[in-house]
Order: sequence, then C-alpha cells, then structure tokens
Amino acid sequence: MIDKTIKVVKIGGNVIDNDAELNAFLEDFAKLEGPKVLVHGGGKIATRLAGELGVETRMIEGRRVTSKEMLDIAVMVYAGLINKRVVAKLQASGVNAIGLCGADGACITSRRRPAKPVDYGEVGDVTEVNTDTLTALTDNGLTPVICAITADKDGNLLNTNADTVATETAKALSRVTPTELIYCFEKAGVLMDVEDESSVIESITPLTVKELIDKGIINSGMLPKVNNAFNAVTCSSIKRVVIKSSKRLNDDSGTKITV
Amino acid sequence: MIDKTIKVVKIGGNVIDNDAELNAFLEDFAKLEGPKVLVHGGGKIATRLAGELGVETRMIEGRRVTSKEMLDIAVMVYAGLINKRVVAKLQASGVNAIGLCGADGACITSRRRPAKPVDYGEVGDVTEVNTDTLTALTDNGLTPVICAITADKDGNLLNTNADTVATETAKALSRVTPTELIYCFEKAGVLMDVEDESSVIESITPLTVKELIDKGIINSGMLPKVNNAFNAVTCSSIKRVVIKSSKRLNDDSGTKITV
Repeated sequence: MIDKTIKVVKIGGNVIDNDAELNAFLEDFAKLEGPKVLVHGGGKIATRLAGELGVETRMIEGRRVTSKEMLDIAVMVYAGLINKRVVAKLQASGVNAIGLCGADGACITSRRRPAKPVDYGEVGDVTEVNTDTLTALTDNGLTPVICAITADKDGNLLNTNADTVATETAKALSRVTPTELIYCFEKAGVLMDVEDESSVIESITPLTVKELIDKGIINSGMLPKVNNAFNAVTCSSIKRVVIKSSKRLNDDSGTKITV
Repeated sequence: MIDKTIKVVKIGGNVIDNDAELNAFLEDFAKLEGPKVLVHGGGKIATRLAGELGVETRMIEGRRVTSKEMLDIAVMVYAGLINKRVVAKLQASGVNAIGLCGADGACITSRRRPAKPVDYGEVGDVTEVNTDTLTALTDNGLTPVICAITADKDGNLLNTNADTVATETAKALSRVTPTELIYCFEKAGVLMDVEDESSVIESITPLTVKELIDKGIINSGMLPKVNNAFNAVTCSSIKRVVIKSSKRLNDDSGTKITV
C-alpha cells in the first residue's frame, strides 16, 4: 500500500550555511517516499549581506528586528538565493521541487505583528495556510519548498519564523490529509546532556515536559521548538512530531513529541 | 464562450524600476481575462546592488557578463525581491499568482552557453519548457509569474534573457493550447520615428521587415525583440505577437508581428 502521509520537514539555518551538509541532507530528503514539503530557515547569509550593505541587525530580547531594508535582504536571500539553490539541487536529484514563499499561491498568509508591546518591524504571524494550493501541487507530483517569507492580504511581504511556518503548514495539511512533522537541526534530538549526542530523549509527552523544563534540560534555545511541537500535536490531527538530526532524516532517531 | 487562450505577457526592466508604473501595469494585468503567464525582466536593482557590494558589471559587445557573484545577485533580485513583490501585489489584486524561476517544477531548463567564442559566464540558453508544470498550475487557477533565472539539468542556476524566456514559454505552450504572446515595454510599439509615439507601425510581416531593418527603423535595440517575435510566429502555433506599451495592455494598440 502506498503511504499517502505528507511529510513536512523543517531544515534550519545551520545546515543551510554548510554546503556539504546541505547537499547530504537534500540527497536524504530526495529519498523520502511519498508526498512531502520542505520548509527552510535562513542561515547567516542574510546577516552577512546586511553587514556588507551596512544595514544594521537590531535585536530586542534575542529576537531580530526586521527593518524595511532587512526585509528586502531576507526576501532576496531566503526566497531568492537559498530557495532557488535548494530547488535546483532537488531537481537535479530527481525531486520535482517548486519553491514558494507565502505569497505564492497565497499559500501562507500572515498579519503584521502589532507594534506593541514590542515593534519587531516587518514581521508577520501566520493567519492562514491555503491547503488548496499545497495539495494541488503535491497532487501533481510537485514538492513544495517553502521559505519563511509570507505576505499579508494587502500584498506586503513579511518576515516569519521558519519553525512556525513549518508547524502551521503541517497543522493545516493535517486537516485534509494524514501529516507528519519533522524538525531537523544540528543535534541528534532533545538531549538530556547538551554535551552528549548519545543522550537523546526518545519521547516527550505533556506528562514529562514540565520536569524537563524545570530542570533546565529543555532550555531557552530548545523551548520554542518543543512548544511548536506540542502546539502541533495538541491543536491538529498530527499524531507526533519528531525533532532530530539533519544527518539522520531517514532513520528512526530523534525525540518524538506526542500527546 | 470562455476564451481558453493562454496569454504570455513579458514586462521589461524599465517598468519594474518604477513603482507607480509597475503597480498600474499589474492592475491591468489583473484585469486580463483567461489563463495567463507573466514573464518579467530585471531592471536596475541588480546593477545597483552589485555596485553597493563592489561587484563589477562587465560588458562584452553591449551584453552583460554574468560572473558567479553577479549570478547570486541576479538570483536574489530577480527570483527573490522582484518576483515576490510582483506576486504579492498580484495576490492583493485578486490574481492567484505563483512565482517561478526555471528550476521550479523544472519549468524552464537551460544549458550553460559555450565559453567560445565569447564567455558570457553564468548564462543559460533555454533547452526545454515543461508545459506539464505550467498547465498544471493554470488548470488549478494559478497564474505563473516567471523570472529569467533558469537551471540546467545538474542543478546550476543560470541567468537567461527575459525576452527569450517569454518567447520559448509561449512557443512551448502553443503546442498544447492556443497561446498569445505580448511584449510590453516603455514605447507604444515599433515606431516609424523613435521620437514620435504616434508613429506606431501597426503590422510587421516577413515581407515588410527587411525594408524596416535596412532603413534603420528597426534598430539594434528593437531587433532582438522583433527577431524573437518572428521566431515565435514562424516556429510555433502562435498566430501573432504584439509589441506594445506597458501602459496599454488591455487595448488593441501596438505593433502586430504576423507571418
């Protein structure tokens, strides 16, 4: 029987920044069977380009503020350079990839984040995922490759968190078809000991997560990812979310988040 | 009866560079009935960005040489900034636009231009247009917005002439469905007197084109466009190509090229 489950795979910036790792990951992604969607983050190219152009990166509470100049850079790098490189590489690996930002086919609509209490600038929060567009593409054998640039209903492009884009895309797809969500990143999973790659926590549930947070095992770097994962498994038909190494996409490794 | 003719519209860089003109053009494009495809050129943003980044624009015989650094800039600006701005604006005008470079859905495959006699660098000539991808999109109510970045079969992105992309796309589509090709630019059409916008030549045929070239009326700036148009009407099922003002998309103005 053919597995019709759509796999939504998120790949982070660290892998994007490393050509050899990115190529290896894309080879693995190409081998993944059945319909699939790739969501990619940004990496350091945008920061580097901003530096070269003298555009300052302003941070508030560890979060980047997206000025109009920085948005243009993000659109160029995420929706242009990275997205098209990834698509071209996947095509050469036999995947009929198609690159999208949220504006394309209105696949991900957002709303500009309110300027209060903190004005993060040209940043959008996802309000709607158009599954008609995404399933029209996958039904035609195309593999969407989505960057974290979205657009509001007035045609303004906005910078959006890539983990959130992956989560909301998977949640929406799960309403129309069985969906899996996989976050790939540089570590083997959520680790008991951040220095020990063999200390992967196999499973996290609502019953165990609080203790892991209280003990500082799920720290501020990992918390948004785990929160996104719980959001997905509690607010949609997704059965589980896997957080795992980008080097081990096709095995059973990583941390499973379930309800 | 619903007109199923696909209209392939090319818009040039001069319009891209002018926000007010671009918006007016996109409003007109939104009103165009039936299935349609927009192909857009680059404009001066890439040249400006190259200047800011200290990347030199080298020209040979009036043609830009695309270095690796310049290709990255072209990908960022054409496939990123311009393409996504156009898509977002069209979405806000009620057009279900989807932005593409040649790699997306392998819609336009190219081959690196041979380095001899002249090495133009990272430049590709179109070898194949995948009408399956394009018609799958239009059949689903999507309007492809195509930039002039293509990819070869090995996953290398390449810079390509936007007029050629429009021509080859229209030629390929004409094999599967009735197709019209419209080049929009800053003038009212091919002019008898380049200073007089009212001197539009209504029609050019193989019988009349030679005299116009001999007399210098079709000059070196206009010749590639006219040659592309003749290529389209002689090598495909396209009945006529119109060269007209981007300000008058929806009327019967301009120069018609027919066989």
